[in-house]
Amino acid sequence: MMMKIVLGVEYFGGDFNGFQRQKNENENLRTVQTNLENAISKIAKQAIKIFPCGRTDAKVHAANQIVHFEVAKQKFQHFPYSAWIKGVNAFLPKNIAIKWCKYILSNDLATEFHARFSAIKRRYRYILLNQNERPGLLAGRCGWYHFDLDVAKMNQAAKLLLGEQDFSCFRAAGCQAKTPIKTMFQANVYEVKNFFNAPKTIFFDLEATGFLLHMVRNIVGTLVYIGDPRKALEITYMKELLKQKNRVFAPPTFSGDGLYFFGASYPTHFEIPELNF
Amino acid sequence: MMMKIVLGVEYFGGDFNGFQRQKNENENLRTVQTNLENAISKIAKQAIKIFPCGRTDAKVHAANQIVHFEVAKQKFQHFPYSAWIKGVNAFLPKNIAIKWCKYILSNDLATEFHARFSAIKRRYRYILLNQNERPGLLAGRCGWYHFDLDVAKMNQAAKLLLGEQDFSCFRAAGCQAKTPIKTMFQANVYEVKNFFNAPKTIFFDLEATGFLLHMVRNIVGTLVYIGDPRKALEITYMKELLKQKNRVFAPPTFSGDGLYFFGASYPTHFEIPELNF
Repeated sequence: MMMKIVLGVEYFGGDFNGFQRQKNENENLRTVQTNLENAISKIAKQAIKIFPCGRTDAKVHAANQIVHFEVAKQKFQHFPYSAWIKGVNAFLPKNIAIKWCKYILSNDLATEFHARFSAIKRRYRYILLNQNERPGLLAGRCGWYHFDLDVAKMNQAAKLLLGEQDFSCFRAAGCQAKTPIKTMFQANVYEVKNFFNAPKTIFFDLEATGFLLHMVRNIVGTLVYIGDPRKALEITYMKELLKQKNRVFAPPTFSGDGLYFFGASYPTHFEIPELNF
Repeated sequence: MMMKIVLGVEYFGGDFNGFQRQKNENENLRTVQTNLENAISKIAKQAIKIFPCGRTDAKVHAANQIVHFEVAKQKFQHFPYSAWIKGVNAFLPKNIAIKWCKYILSNDLATEFHARFSAIKRRYRYILLNQNERPGLLAGRCGWYHFDLDVAKMNQAAKLLLGEQDFSCFRAAGCQAKTPIKTMFQANVYEVKNFFNAPKTIFFDLEATGFLLHMVRNIVGTLVYIGDPRKALEITYMKELLKQKNRVFAPPTFSGDGLYFFGASYPTHFEIPELNF
């Protein structure tokens, strides 16, 4: 009999070549997956392959990536969670850390659960510094826009993303999703005080059934166009873009520096810990 | 006639070998001073030597370091501030950025002003993640303590630091300050919500006439001992340490990872921009 082990992972994406393992990885810039599999395999004393909730791109960070892997129940069911948290952390580079662990022991549930395919909602936060000068302290950890943005207007435009929609206009070439139709549950743009006292920090929080390739970064690019008074775009520009269903009409993709995967929701019977906005 | 140019600088200390220029610098890990002097000299088209408000140690960050340098008034008084902000930023590595610029043109004031010697108050923030597992996303940017701390108790103990005191008990060997007697104006310990949703983030904000070598990191080490219920120390332990005036009695120095120089106050007639807590 097998069981599944589910881990919550955070990482600073700037130090890794994306999540997904590559053939012929660069020794100086490994993927998150390779680092995790190497560390977990040392604790398990066998080769482990992990499955993530979502494969983040190069530079993109995670506050709560969810991964699962399969092991023999008889051998591992009495292992303490700390083996997969403190134990694995001891073998990881400092910019990746396991935050929590959850065992799925029931045969039915373990067969059913998959970190990617069982997820019913996914969350992303984009952090944008809106200030004259480029960031120094938070370089690589935030997007940056130098012209003063209208946050309330961007938030109104974001509300037009809610509900079931065809998001083709925000879909990058090479996207492997089966369908461009997703349901957006939350879309909030707001200003926050951050702990480094940057003059104006804007959060873009999005929750949907799923996200297409570069979808969050493309949405942020469009919202920034709408929020920049020099461009004089109406809020309804968002509705028009969605109707056109064509990436070529939408503004440029924003940098991956400010993008954080915030995790997912699963059906409650799996009892997976959640990180909310 | 000369003028002085004052700059506000932020940097992530983890990428530099401290502030102060070293003989035979490691090419892969330069100091902040070398980076700044090289970039400023390119804009000034002459060799520039800068003087900082405080020389931060290796790893330590700055949200608002203040530096000044001297140039010929006739040549530079009509340069726009943007030359020293955007212009210099273009020659700096991404983890250092100039935030603001201020000219001191009057001969008397320019002669009088010095980024270090004119400062009358200095501010530091220490950021501590208080959680079971080590940080991943904020590695190198926060201190970490795994056992649940009593924030209210630490804050009460911090209040015993206020006023004019002999801070010898928090003074590291090698400190070059003329006197261990400083006046503490603010000492606040409190919990904040941060934008990466870490479960418990604690700020230690200190403002004083000046700080001895490792003084903030030693104070944080002592406050953490007082806040850890397993050690059962009284708040008055802080008073006893101060009375003993001897470093050997105080708890260990905390990591530089969580330490941010927050800037200084100058006599108001210099009109230097301030960053407050």
